[in-house]
Amino acid sequence: MSLSRTQTTFAPPVMEARRWLDGVVFSETKPLINVSQAAPVDPPPPAMRAAMAQMILEDDATHLYGPVLGLPELRAEVAAQFSAGYEASLSPDQVAITSGCNQAFSAVITAIANEGDEVILPTPYYFNHKMWLDMSGIASVPLPCGAGLLPSVEECAALITPKTRAIALVTPNNPAGVEYPADLVLAFYQLARSHGIKLIIDETYRDFDSRTGAPHSLLQQDGWDETVVQLYSFSKAYRLTGHRVGAVVTSPSLLAEAEKFLDTVAICPNQLGQRAALWGMQNLSDWLAGERLEILDRRAAIEEGFGPLAAKGWSLLGVGAYFAYVAHPFDLPSDQLAPWLVREAGVLVLPGTMFQPDGDPAGAGQLRIAFANIDRDGINTLFARLAGLAPPHNPA
Amino acid sequence: MSLSRTQTTFAPPVMEARRWLDGVVFSETKPLINVSQAAPVDPPPPAMRAAMAQMILEDDATHLYGPVLGLPELRAEVAAQFSAGYEASLSPDQVAITSGCNQAFSAVITAIANEGDEVILPTPYYFNHKMWLDMSGIASVPLPCGAGLLPSVEECAALITPKTRAIALVTPNNPAGVEYPADLVLAFYQLARSHGIKLIIDETYRDFDSRTGAPHSLLQQDGWDETVVQLYSFSKAYRLTGHRVGAVVTSPSLLAEAEKFLDTVAICPNQLGQRAALWGMQNLSDWLAGERLEILDRRAAIEEGFGPLAAKGWSLLGVGAYFAYVAHPFDLPSDQLAPWLVREAGVLVLPGTMFQPDGDPAGAGQLRIAFANIDRDGINTLFARLAGLAPPHNPA
Repeated sequence: MSLSRTQTTFAPPVMEARRWLDGVVFSETKPLINVSQAAPVDPPPPAMRAAMAQMILEDDATHLYGPVLGLPELRAEVAAQFSAGYEASLSPDQVAITSGCNQAFSAVITAIANEGDEVILPTPYYFNHKMWLDMSGIASVPLPCGAGLLPSVEECAALITPKTRAIALVTPNNPAGVEYPADLVLAFYQLARSHGIKLIIDETYRDFDSRTGAPHSLLQQDGWDETVVQLYSFSKAYRLTGHRVGAVVTSPSLLAEAEKFLDTVAICPNQLGQRAALWGMQNLSDWLAGERLEILDRRAAIEEGFGPLAAKGWSLLGVGAYFAYVAHPFDLPSDQLAPWLVREAGVLVLPGTMFQPDGDPAGAGQLRIAFANIDRDGINTLFARLAGLAPPHNPA
Repeated sequence: MSLSRTQTTFAPPVMEARRWLDGVVFSETKPLINVSQAAPVDPPPPAMRAAMAQMILEDDATHLYGPVLGLPELRAEVAAQFSAGYEASLSPDQVAITSGCNQAFSAVITAIANEGDEVILPTPYYFNHKMWLDMSGIASVPLPCGAGLLPSVEECAALITPKTRAIALVTPNNPAGVEYPADLVLAFYQLARSHGIKLIIDETYRDFDSRTGAPHSLLQQDGWDETVVQLYSFSKAYRLTGHRVGAVVTSPSLLAEAEKFLDTVAICPNQLGQRAALWGMQNLSDWLAGERLEILDRRAAIEEGFGPLAAKGWSLLGVGAYFAYVAHPFDLPSDQLAPWLVREAGVLVLPGTMFQPDGDPAGAGQLRIAFANIDRDGINTLFARLAGLAPPHNPA
């Protein structure tokens, strides 16, 4: 019998990594440091929780079906704030709300591509993007990043074929943390536009970009919405990971196509999460600014504290937003090293193999550290544990 | 350029129907009767809302990522209560939680089928099932229901080919309301099992079945989970439509495949909805029993009140759970009749064309009435409006 769609892809990396914890006992003096998933350190702030509780008690619509493409007030707020943030002019009908940013990507791909088509993904990639393309029967065409983990526009151009439907970028990048320069992003836009394909730009981590002002000028281009598909998540900014709220910004006609997918897979985004996101956008700007500074301080701690690791042969390949992407010095592939690190160092990270195509040797030497949920002390403890490791025995 | 996946299917029916309301003004003496969507009449009961507000304020995990396949406590509670309700013996690892029952269907199809495969759907079908199969490149093979709107096992057997991956039943049925007899369901199970294909059984409306005891014996069969995939929704029972929580009951190995889809499309079901569903299962059994009786009383009102409509040439094709499925007497196809009914009668229903394959003449004569959100008075008003209609002018 032929394979089902799910059988053409791999198991969820974060869930696989959780299984490495099974049967491992951590001591009070050396508790687990879990830097495997991009998760905020805490639940939402008390004022937001109070507002959410009030919605549950007093707003009936919080419990009922709503429009497939999301709460109109939230679509309008995203349009207004993104217009300000990107120095552009968005309308609410260029915005849709989704049940998280993964769903936004899935909906968009389903709306623009079909069996046998191709989408170009810089590598290392975000694994759920790869998984959705696999399950959709769409070839992920890898665009290996060079130094600085930035993709090359020229190399990308050489990969475009008549089957290419999109280039999918993530900036700030998951897993590498790298912030793509505005002129690089614009060059990708021009390339996509000249070929009549989409430029998908996943900006889940945009609220933690170290740069101020608009990180790119895509939304300022004439007719941008024919080419650009911007993805966003409310999960990180407002600590709403458990509430599943994301967004897509693109043309109303593409959103009308995505609506078919969203109706069929979700009916509507959950209503409380949408209202919480709206409340957050309207009330937490200053708080979020502080959150960003805290993440930037942790990023600085990563950079400042890396010396002892570098002395042991580690390299910091990329860092920014929630992630540090590192090369390890050990003679053990990362998919074996990562479970070993759980047992030996009490550290859970994801191996580079989860972010690279099968058979690509790059992933074996790499690890992703999702550091947003540990503070400076935690980062120092993490680095001390890694620097103190004796090289693992390679059973191979 | 070739079509994208979404371009191979139709627009979301409920959203399309909402657009028929645009520009129509309803008077206070003749307000809109909206029986287009299967929606409970009210938000959850106050005790549940209070419990949910407390979770938001006091349980940090309500705001955080959780396991892809759902809250372990909810999986265990479903296993326990379904074991009792179906006189069977389920384990928690045979249960997964999804972001609504539509997502459960999408996940299961993706886990069992691929491009070019076939799934047999009795017609009239639930439109989101058809839409997902279309978008997945899977042929929906129609199995037209005969008298009583029940599908024939013999006719189904004749439709099975080497490409068939599943038969998908909905009982109590959407759109027809019909409750499938236990022996019919068992015969479909035996047919599916003998061909090594899945029997998907969507029981979104099971809490409103007029029969008492287990509605079928599928979960009692030896090795049932190799064949049966049961789908459920918490939306109707506990009035949680806005919170998006459903379930799948099948083998752990199939759930491991579905997990790939669920991770990629949702990461996890939202945490509050899951906790609310668990609270409902643990605290609202008596209340739900009352809800069921109220729906059964409304069903009785449909049957008792149909006389005047029958005298005008209408037929009640099926009724049960949330739905009445009717044949209208007018010389106008239902997709033109339904928008006309908004303007002329202040009534929003979905046309049969939305539940039948393109080109099937049956749908033109049919309408679905989702009556759960109107009481006896509302049903009488609805019927009086319909019975009082002069035949529409057919522009054709």
